[in-house]
Amino acid sequence: MRSFVNPQDLGDLQKAMQEALEIKNDRFKYQHLGKNKTLMMIFFNNSLRTRLSTQKAAMNLGMNVIVLDVNAGAWKLETERGVIMDGDKAEHLLEAIPVMACYCDMIGVRSFAGLSDREYDYAETVLNQFLKYSGKPVFAMETATVHPLQAFADLITMEESWAKDNGHSLDNFDFNHKKMKAVLTWAPHCRALPQAVPNSYVQWMLAAPDVELVVTHPHGYELDPKFLEYTNPATGEVRRAVVEYDQRKAFEGADFIYAKNWSCPGVTEPADYGKILSKDMSWTVDTEHMSWTNNGKFLHCLPVRRGLIVTDDVIESPNSLVIPEAANREISCSVVIKRMLESL
Amino acid sequence: MRSFVNPQDLGDLQKAMQEALEIKNDRFKYQHLGKNKTLMMIFFNNSLRTRLSTQKAAMNLGMNVIVLDVNAGAWKLETERGVIMDGDKAEHLLEAIPVMACYCDMIGVRSFAGLSDREYDYAETVLNQFLKYSGKPVFAMETATVHPLQAFADLITMEESWAKDNGHSLDNFDFNHKKMKAVLTWAPHCRALPQAVPNSYVQWMLAAPDVELVVTHPHGYELDPKFLEYTNPATGEVRRAVVEYDQRKAFEGADFIYAKNWSCPGVTEPADYGKILSKDMSWTVDTEHMSWTNNGKFLHCLPVRRGLIVTDDVIESPNSLVIPEAANREISCSVVIKRMLESL
Amino acid sequence: MRSFVNPQDLGDLQKAMQEALEIKNDRFKYQHLGKNKTLMMIFFNNSLRTRLSTQKAAMNLGMNVIVLDVNAGAWKLETERGVIMDGDKAEHLLEAIPVMACYCDMIGVRSFAGLSDREYDYAETVLNQFLKYSGKPVFAMETATVHPLQAFADLITMEESWAKDNGHSLDNFDFNHKKMKAVLTWAPHCRALPQAVPNSYVQWMLAAPDVELVVTHPHGYELDPKFLEYTNPATGEVRRAVVEYDQRKAFEGADFIYAKNWSCPGVTEPADYGKILSKDMSWTVDTEHMSWTNNGKFLHCLPVRRGLIVTDDVIESPNSLVIPEAANREISCSVVIKRMLESL
Repeated sequence: MRSFVNPQDLGDLQKAMQEALEIKNDRFKYQHLGKNKTLMMIFFNNSLRTRLSTQKAAMNLGMNVIVLDVNAGAWKLETERGVIMDGDKAEHLLEAIPVMACYCDMIGVRSFAGLSDREYDYAETVLNQFLKYSGKPVFAMETATVHPLQAFADLITMEESWAKDNGHSLDNFDFNHKKMKAVLTWAPHCRALPQAVPNSYVQWMLAAPDVELVVTHPHGYELDPKFLEYTNPATGEVRRAVVEYDQRKAFEGADFIYAKNWSCPGVTEPADYGKILSKDMSWTVDTEHMSWTNNGKFLHCLPVRRGLIVTDDVIESPNSLVIPEAANREISCSVVIKRMLESL
Repeated sequence: MRSFVNPQDLGDLQKAMQEALEIKNDRFKYQHLGKNKTLMMIFFNNSLRTRLSTQKAAMNLGMNVIVLDVNAGAWKLETERGVIMDGDKAEHLLEAIPVMACYCDMIGVRSFAGLSDREYDYAETVLNQFLKYSGKPVFAMETATVHPLQAFADLITMEESWAKDNGHSLDNFDFNHKKMKAVLTWAPHCRALPQAVPNSYVQWMLAAPDVELVVTHPHGYELDPKFLEYTNPATGEVRRAVVEYDQRKAFEGADFIYAKNWSCPGVTEPADYGKILSKDMSWTVDTEHMSWTNNGKFLHCLPVRRGLIVTDDVIESPNSLVIPEAANREISCSVVIKRMLESL
Repeated sequence: MRSFVNPQDLGDLQKAMQEALEIKNDRFKYQHLGKNKTLMMIFFNNSLRTRLSTQKAAMNLGMNVIVLDVNAGAWKLETERGVIMDGDKAEHLLEAIPVMACYCDMIGVRSFAGLSDREYDYAETVLNQFLKYSGKPVFAMETATVHPLQAFADLITMEESWAKDNGHSLDNFDFNHKKMKAVLTWAPHCRALPQAVPNSYVQWMLAAPDVELVVTHPHGYELDPKFLEYTNPATGEVRRAVVEYDQRKAFEGADFIYAKNWSCPGVTEPADYGKILSKDMSWTVDTEHMSWTNNGKFLHCLPVRRGLIVTDDVIESPNSLVIPEAANREISCSVVIKRMLESL
């Protein structure tokens, strides 16, 4: 595997899930693969969970890790040709990226959406530059529009919980069991946030054949259509997310509630891209919301602002999966790094 | 060992000293213990010696190390329930701590006293949150009121020096030899400093049966009573520090002078907590001060401001132990990490 | 080897080149040397290439690495005796350096020229303090006046290219082949830059018997005389750089063009030290400049400002060696660290 951006990059998702569960049983099993191999983690934006879990996964696999914190503001790369570089851009990406790449075997990149230029963000400019010019395997550690390590960890967490609650074994994992209903719900927030997490969550839930996904949000928060539709790379089958604007209706019978805020994706009104359109606190997930579900489990990628996204009671309840979900970031990342090591 | 805050946490101090000397003879002897184990060092405040020595100790023991610099100003954790988190606190400690903990096997925490709220500082709020919510072994890398890695290193340094000067062997170390007189002396400084180092020094010297401790400082600098008294966990014996306000009288016959500034502990006048009550330069340790001692050795935890705490002549003299004292930070920390690895 | 500052520190340069090529063939061959050894990298200035390549080289050799970023502005060390340290300098170098050294086996130091005090810069004050007070092997990761890891990597890159173009083998490398003409050319820049890179490049090219060096720059940019002359430590033979103020004349017949900006070295006019004397864009290396050469290769240490130092066409041409040159930083550093490990 040379790039990890979308669920399709993993090929057969059932096999990837089996590998995840195998690695969770023995995190150090593939440690020989990483010997004398170096992962470079490049952060254009801050990170806590992603940095820690990725570093841990790489160390589990025997790799050396170099962390590079690039202040997105301070380190500006020129991307054009023909420019006299006498301003604040001290290096051209055509030098910077190959140079970083020459000291490592694999690259993880974090680069958030700026939320001001939709075209630039949705073109995944930074990520694609690394894919194009580094010559090394590259995985997304949350980029402008996707956060696949999170969504893969979300799926693992849901499958573990579902298997436990339904009494089926995780040995020799397959998707062929009772389907679960998952709801991605928008919730209010005080700051404008990117769409990377909801985009990837939708993608991955559509890729998992045992999940029936409903997306619910106020009008204007429609996600980009390319994420609402998923084509199975093996069968060509197309699955589409159901969008339900009535949050209560969406929650009814849900087995999993995935709460997340995002700012306007600018699909219906491009001029609104990155804006906060609503702070409607009736969308905050509280015990009443959860009472509409089928004794649903609660997920969130963290960090979470209590009182806005979710109440204390819900996030602290036994049905809250947020901590195991965070812990599974180490597992999803281990599968990705293992696959990339095998491809070297 | 699941926590390291006070000397009692080590159990039998004589045995801990034996381990320290054993590890100093072969720093890599217990390297197998740390294989595939990860230490997370969390710094809410800057660090030089502590960061370097702890990282070195963990690597000696074969561990992986993740360093997390948390800007105490920038990363504010909500600690209350029922709050709508729409302000500057982006995460609740009930999520943040378990998440950090889930990517490691052991945690070191540095979090200084703020020196404005005595109750908050002396409650060791941050440290105790990690002890309570992380589920992992936690050791203090200088917290609001204690710096046990330093004090343990101080004790090792004094015992080594004392054994050398008195011609007794360090093999099969025991405390049963000629007693040494140690003096903790306040000295002036231009900034208000916490009491963590003097608090722990007093605790550890009271825990060492071969040390007779005298504490000297201007009026108003009385340390918190809980540190001036030590109960031996095995025998129940209580030892108390002698306080002597006359610095010269305190120094007479001293074998070890431990100089340190601290701000007002607020014991007699709570309103003075964290204030500088004196800049009296007659307390600066110079050659005349040292001439009152029994050819005493000089210690300081570093960094030290020359001319305020101590003169050039004293700190550069052959009787100065500040560099071996700093080097022993690697040893004290190795014992702590080894004990925690054994408890996993 | 206890210090690495000048080419003489490597002893026989031919043997060092052989080691470099041997290590490039098998980067992990000497991994046993670094077991349980720790490199401390101390950065008083920012770094990308140097940090990454040095960390990689140390890990290749099996070492542990501790990176210490010292904000040159924030961490001020007192260097004088007899001072009452009640200002912004919180630590004396006589404590700080031995303490940093006691937690490692080897030190790399980066500390740029301040470009305001020529005497201070050219005395290599910071580097020499580490050499004098650390008691550990120390190598320069670009200091006030030299950047030997870069110049050694430059030489390796030129030899590889020369061997390939002339069809001679790199096995059992020796300097006894057709000579190459190398030109160090000044080029304009928008900021005042140190002279470390050109100083070291001149030194190393004079140390390589197969290189004929010409230095070209506008009047006033004369490099310090001590770098323009090289005495072979084995034979006592003295070689001097040729200075040619006519850039075109210098370029004629050149096999390698090494472009670099530097600010005024203050040799003829000490008051001009660190100033920008010229921004003459006729010195920018473009395709016309390269047409004067013998199908010359282009080198630059990076980062490079396109349009000022070199045009897009030249740096992207097949004759540009800037990426392999950066990659060879891992190799030059590996030789240096290996030598130091062998000396422990």
